[in-house]
Amino acid sequence: MTVDIEFGDDGLVPAVAQDADSGEVVMLAYASPEAVERTHETGLAHYYSRSREELWQKGATSGNVQRVREVRVDCDADALLYLVDQEGGACHTGHESCFHRSIESVDADGAGATAGVRTVGERVFDPDEVYE
Amino acid sequence: MTVDIEFGDDGLVPAVAQDADSGEVVMLAYASPEAVERTHETGLAHYYSRSREELWQKGATSGNVQRVREVRVDCDADALLYLVDQEGGACHTGHESCFHRSIESVDADGAGATAGVRTVGERVFDPDEVYE
Repeated sequence: MTVDIEFGDDGLVPAVAQDADSGEVVMLAYASPEAVERTHETGLAHYYSRSREELWQKGATSGNVQRVREVRVDCDADALLYLVDQEGGACHTGHESCFHRSIESVDADGAGATAGVRTVGERVFDPDEVYE
Repeated sequence: MTVDIEFGDDGLVPAVAQDADSGEVVMLAYASPEAVERTHETGLAHYYSRSREELWQKGATSGNVQRVREVRVDCDADALLYLVDQEGGACHTGHESCFHRSIESVDADGAGATAGVRTVGERVFDPDEVYE
């Protein structure tokens, strides 16, 4: 069976990366058609950087690569799940997961929301030693 | 410490729902400021439906609600993680997770990608009995 992946108006789909062993959700980024193909071909997680506007192999700079065991697609084919072995930590702050802040309060108005947060989880590497 | 959640041009952020016990990533949807606030206030996962263009409490129709233990925000404050107790299954197809298809091949061109997929995981409910 085949499915056409539904890329958004920007040509991208959100891709969630989950540590295949610990189950921790480590990051959410975006994938282009080329990123999905390169991920499948190389077994290393690729994304598309919206800020740098380029294909991006996770860990190419830091060494904190994601070896992809499996990629799943959701029922609407508009989101991906990468099941990965995460080298080092996923987050540029040195944490294993980019989701290392817990929301304790929410103050929303029509256009936005401010959250009171508390950091959870420890750093697993020193970003000053990894990123130049 | 407070952070301003970074909603996109469409006023939404992606929100990943993960079963807090099993660790399974069950769905990805989008949240508006109001959805984030309602989730925090009620302890039940709320999203914003892009197709119906309205605030949406997960499970309001099906009964398959998500009781939210914790909400996390990522390092860029542009994605959320809902840690939930999932009643029934998350997916309208009857599966526990919307991510129940594994990608086995990828054929990409510049604008899109077609994936060969295989269904993984069992149905946990019969959608014909839940959705009218």
